[in-house]
Amino acid sequence: MDRDTGSGGPSTPSGPTARLRRRKGSNEVPPEVETNSDRLLFNDRNKYKSMLIRTYSTVWMIGGFASIIYLGHLYIWAMVVVIQIFMAKELFNLLRKAHEDRQLPGFRLLNWHFFFTVMLFVYGRILSQRLVNTVTMDKFLYKLVGRLIKYHMVTCYFLYIAGFMWFILTLKKKMYKYQFSQYAWTHMILIVVFTQSAFTVANIFEGIFWFLLPASLIVINDIAAYIFGFFFGRTPLIKLSPKKTWEGFIGASFATMISAFVLANILGRFQWLTCPRKDLSTGWLECDPGPLFKPEYFTVPQWFPEWFPWREISILPVQWHALCLGLFASIIAPFGGFFASGFKRAFKIKDFGDSIPGHGGITDRMDCQMVMAVFAYIYHQSFIVPQSLSIEMIMDQILMNLTFEEQRALYTKLGQIIMEKQFGES
Amino acid sequence: MDRDTGSGGPSTPSGPTARLRRRKGSNEVPPEVETNSDRLLFNDRNKYKSMLIRTYSTVWMIGGFASIIYLGHLYIWAMVVVIQIFMAKELFNLLRKAHEDRQLPGFRLLNWHFFFTVMLFVYGRILSQRLVNTVTMDKFLYKLVGRLIKYHMVTCYFLYIAGFMWFILTLKKKMYKYQFSQYAWTHMILIVVFTQSAFTVANIFEGIFWFLLPASLIVINDIAAYIFGFFFGRTPLIKLSPKKTWEGFIGASFATMISAFVLANILGRFQWLTCPRKDLSTGWLECDPGPLFKPEYFTVPQWFPEWFPWREISILPVQWHALCLGLFASIIAPFGGFFASGFKRAFKIKDFGDSIPGHGGITDRMDCQMVMAVFAYIYHQSFIVPQSLSIEMIMDQILMNLTFEEQRALYTKLGQIIMEKQFGES
Repeated sequence: MDRDTGSGGPSTPSGPTARLRRRKGSNEVPPEVETNSDRLLFNDRNKYKSMLIRTYSTVWMIGGFASIIYLGHLYIWAMVVVIQIFMAKELFNLLRKAHEDRQLPGFRLLNWHFFFTVMLFVYGRILSQRLVNTVTMDKFLYKLVGRLIKYHMVTCYFLYIAGFMWFILTLKKKMYKYQFSQYAWTHMILIVVFTQSAFTVANIFEGIFWFLLPASLIVINDIAAYIFGFFFGRTPLIKLSPKKTWEGFIGASFATMISAFVLANILGRFQWLTCPRKDLSTGWLECDPGPLFKPEYFTVPQWFPEWFPWREISILPVQWHALCLGLFASIIAPFGGFFASGFKRAFKIKDFGDSIPGHGGITDRMDCQMVMAVFAYIYHQSFIVPQSLSIEMIMDQILMNLTFEEQRALYTKLGQIIMEKQFGES
Repeated sequence: MDRDTGSGGPSTPSGPTARLRRRKGSNEVPPEVETNSDRLLFNDRNKYKSMLIRTYSTVWMIGGFASIIYLGHLYIWAMVVVIQIFMAKELFNLLRKAHEDRQLPGFRLLNWHFFFTVMLFVYGRILSQRLVNTVTMDKFLYKLVGRLIKYHMVTCYFLYIAGFMWFILTLKKKMYKYQFSQYAWTHMILIVVFTQSAFTVANIFEGIFWFLLPASLIVINDIAAYIFGFFFGRTPLIKLSPKKTWEGFIGASFATMISAFVLANILGRFQWLTCPRKDLSTGWLECDPGPLFKPEYFTVPQWFPEWFPWREISILPVQWHALCLGLFASIIAPFGGFFASGFKRAFKIKDFGDSIPGHGGITDRMDCQMVMAVFAYIYHQSFIVPQSLSIEMIMDQILMNLTFEEQRALYTKLGQIIMEKQFGES
């Protein structure tokens, strides 16, 4: 935000490339949107001040974030929910017209009704099995939760339908178009916000590692792109985000890949981060994190320079997967940012909000995170969850969803089928 | 469509209520939208011609529909896909501006790219297990399909991301707003079209009954409302759909409830309709359709009139559930229609398309079907799938997803756990 303002007359780009580009582009640039944005960060006098503000809030965010990671899964989830509410608030306000809203009492309430309905639905689905695991000790609670989960979907459906009917019954003449646009906009927001959060929360409970590594890579890529662009940026990358440069993009890619490899080695050694959480408590976690997190030892080749402190290095197999995440975080995830830039340009807004000094709104920081969280989840499901785990998953289902009598019935039935197959084969 | 046009001077409402309402409302009605629509069907001279056209295409539709039901699950699915493509086509065209599109080559292709990506995703999810069941005989195919399914999600994700990047890279200056609006609109269409079809197809494979009964109830309710409104309609129901009357609404509710009860009794007796389909073949179906479809016999009380042909009637328990579906189809599903009406009014369009003579576009016929299909699925999942079935579902999972060795490993593990529990209790 700050870096766009106040860069007045004297701070024009002076590199020959920039000047050339500027002259060529000058007739296609609508002046009200892009007067300043055409200048790269390189050689901008205000950039030092802007960098300071941005660094300051970044440090604060990282500190708060680390504490929350330490506190555990439930707190991280709470953080995601808070972020989510802020994002929804910023986005709900974005295309709102106060004038029209005054004539529609309760219209904003309806948005939040949909928001909390979807929240109930999404988190209910992700966390219901873990909730069951948490209350197995108490027979009454266990039954109650079981019943709640059974009717969870139908409850959410009726909450949604109630909102839907409410919307239709409060349609006002001459406001139809505004109301329908807002309805569509609300649904777009719900998709954006909940795609992000649902996958993020699913990642958290698969093991904080699968949330923390991707999220960190985005932050690292962002900061690295900023720093590389700051010091070396000359060649503009894409018209949508005129402050982004090829130098920043490529430099950040390397930095991110290296960070991914190193970070996975560090994070992969804490069971607190690698174990999946199968209930909703905050207690200590212990598990066999599986072969991905078992270090393999490699002897450093003879020709390696003497100053290299280790003669033997240990590598976790998960580090190779981390490279894939790093590649995605640096090449594809930035498109989330381009999309957000384009959107802001299309609707002539500077930022989605102003919750974080120097960064703009929370939504401005979440654009790439969203693309990344979805990828991390799908990558985890497709390439990490090993075949052998599916026995465990089915076992969980059996123990969670069936009564003891049903478990015995299943056992007998399965025994018969196995007998038949063995008999049929021999 | 036809019934809205050509009702000129002489066909003004003549009932005292209608006249009163007309006078009172006249100053709030914007003339360009509602000059004709303020008149109820009752006493409209053109209504006979319009009814004929509508009846004709309705009969054709019902005939074609019945043949498809007879052919089986795969053909019904194909029908749903065709309907879906037509709907998407109608809706994609709706907010399109030909002028803007000319400057954006390949922009429509992108819409269809998203469409088929979502289609691959949705049907892959619903039908993958059934595909596995179909190819179990051939070891090579079985392995191939297993692999395809394993990478199904990640494939769809990358197809989507490819479209997303394509969108961003083809953003054109001065077209941003149009392009982003179209992007949002595309996503709204995909939600609308695929919510409908995904739930519909899921219903079909749970047993055609769960697709056919709800769909029929909507059609019956629609026709009944039309007929009741035609003969008795005087009191307007809602401003959004000025042709709808309370008489039609209430009459149709009764007709729908009765039809639901009777229809469930008839449909519930065919195994072709009640058995779930667990593979993708079109072969004959045989199963134990469960207690819901076992007739219970009731003796007709003595005081029943002599002309009543049966002394004993058989009722299937599923008929009570059918009443719930009927209630929903007649009270809540019409809101789908109101929503569509409101939408058409907001964007000043008459119909979503003109695929069916007298009915408008396919989308115009699908508005309530969508709300209903979702309800039918959720109702089925929440209230019909009995507890004892979940053993069967888990059994299916075991047999489908695990190799024989894994099945044996699971069997041993489960045996141990059951032993432990029994030992712990005694």
